[in-house]
Amino acid sequence: MGGRALVQWEQNRDNAPDSLHVDLYAGGPAPAELEDVTFYQVPYVPSTQGVDERLDIIGRMPELRVLQLVSAGYEQVLDLVPDHVTLCNGRGLHDASTAEHTLALILAAQRELPRWAIDQRERRWTPSPQRSLADSRVMIVGYGSIGRAIERRLLPFETEVVRVAGRARPDEDVHGVDELHALLPEVDVVVLVTPLTEATRGLFGRREFSLLRDDALVVNVGRGPVLDTEALIAENGRIRAALDVTDPEPLPVEHPLWEAPGVYFTPHVAGGSAAFYPRARAFMDEQLARWAKGEALANVVRPGR
Amino acid sequence: MGGRALVQWEQNRDNAPDSLHVDLYAGGPAPAELEDVTFYQVPYVPSTQGVDERLDIIGRMPELRVLQLVSAGYEQVLDLVPDHVTLCNGRGLHDASTAEHTLALILAAQRELPRWAIDQRERRWTPSPQRSLADSRVMIVGYGSIGRAIERRLLPFETEVVRVAGRARPDEDVHGVDELHALLPEVDVVVLVTPLTEATRGLFGRREFSLLRDDALVVNVGRGPVLDTEALIAENGRIRAALDVTDPEPLPVEHPLWEAPGVYFTPHVAGGSAAFYPRARAFMDEQLARWAKGEALANVVRPGR
Repeated sequence: MGGRALVQWEQNRDNAPDSLHVDLYAGGPAPAELEDVTFYQVPYVPSTQGVDERLDIIGRMPELRVLQLVSAGYEQVLDLVPDHVTLCNGRGLHDASTAEHTLALILAAQRELPRWAIDQRERRWTPSPQRSLADSRVMIVGYGSIGRAIERRLLPFETEVVRVAGRARPDEDVHGVDELHALLPEVDVVVLVTPLTEATRGLFGRREFSLLRDDALVVNVGRGPVLDTEALIAENGRIRAALDVTDPEPLPVEHPLWEAPGVYFTPHVAGGSAAFYPRARAFMDEQLARWAKGEALANVVRPGR
Repeated sequence: MGGRALVQWEQNRDNAPDSLHVDLYAGGPAPAELEDVTFYQVPYVPSTQGVDERLDIIGRMPELRVLQLVSAGYEQVLDLVPDHVTLCNGRGLHDASTAEHTLALILAAQRELPRWAIDQRERRWTPSPQRSLADSRVMIVGYGSIGRAIERRLLPFETEVVRVAGRARPDEDVHGVDELHALLPEVDVVVLVTPLTEATRGLFGRREFSLLRDDALVVNVGRGPVLDTEALIAENGRIRAALDVTDPEPLPVEHPLWEAPGVYFTPHVAGGSAAFYPRARAFMDEQLARWAKGEALANVVRPGR
């Protein structure tokens, strides 16, 4: 493939086939020459604020053939790339990180880790019997790549997993979301790991909470608006929650969720741990090799026309 | 078997073979009749303070043949039972609970759960990139029944486990503790899960800390004195720690460990979660069935002579 590839990590430049011309761009001020860029991996930065040069420069790449993201979401670039550009995302690259954080949240809730952190800070030693994760029935709502990664980590804890997705997949023992209400009364933990779509916005609200057993735990590692924050607060501790995403997000300082009983959250840090980087770099090595050989790319979310 | 069995849980009385006479005793004031008790399961209570009638009454059981504990430790009763009494413990019954808590501690440290708990309390939203457990090499020191349970839960997190025990067991890929110093520089996480013996007291001290990489994590779910508290404090944050047991324990209010940088702990709650009870009741059902049939008992730590 002619032209030039622009990627973020030195490893990918160093490992690229000799036939590729590869330069580095890790975000910040734009490189001077962009006219001959044919493959552009948008640099991953943990959080973006203000002007985003990483996306602005796409308009200065007339030869662009492939826009590669290493995030799963790609809505933000759909309007920035012409139809003839192939758009690829980072599906799967955050799975290990997000699944690991999901287990951290579940265990934090069952074993009262926030309580011990506060106790330590206030020099209190107050042991008491704890809940456990063992013997729990855990529902995963949005059973896909990350859901499977969560399930693999859950099963050795002597749990049972109930799989739910938008559509039933009987061959994989996945229930359709139309069965959600029938299944909720039988589970101890619900993990929400769906993307945000019109179908999932507000998916878990007052009705769904009401169907859960007392003391059940709801975990959200998908997107904040999938869970109805007001409905959670209205449960007033009857249902517990461990969240990595909230709605609104970030949470305004005066919001009642900060002190809602039985609610614990982390500030949207599930996907961005150290586990992401080696997986993303390995994927980019493979993707550049495919590109150099003219092979079909992986993770295409919109083929160029 | 003649005489009477005294057990803690109704399930075990209800499931016992008809040939056994079984009564309940869950701790507190002693039952009036103890003379014909032949099998006594010492009731499990989460924490004991002051006079312990559960043990005092052993002296009033002249027909006793079996003393059954559901804890792993049994030092406390060795001097209370005559040589002809068979002593059985609760080995394995706490494995699921302790292994689960071990993962909770490791994930809490890697994903900074104590920080988020305090941030929530103080209404701060301060996301930042996190460590991960994925790709870590985790050493388990004291590789036995609980160690295996920890390993089963660790492996799906895309980790590598290094097994260490008092003696090498090459067929199981277990290193002897004499190799500890050679192995320490290569690991990211050390889990201490040994009982307290003269060989393990102070096992992890200044020398062992010094061999670890910067930012390594030491987890202690065995017994407090296995780890040298002063040596940990002297690391001053270079090494992180997540502990369920401390030395001294409980930690006096003025102790420097409360605020030692990079140190997080829970108040000896690993083994006593809800996971313990169904496993202990199931074990007791089986043990009483063996006793009724005159079969060899499980978990014998000192056969009666």
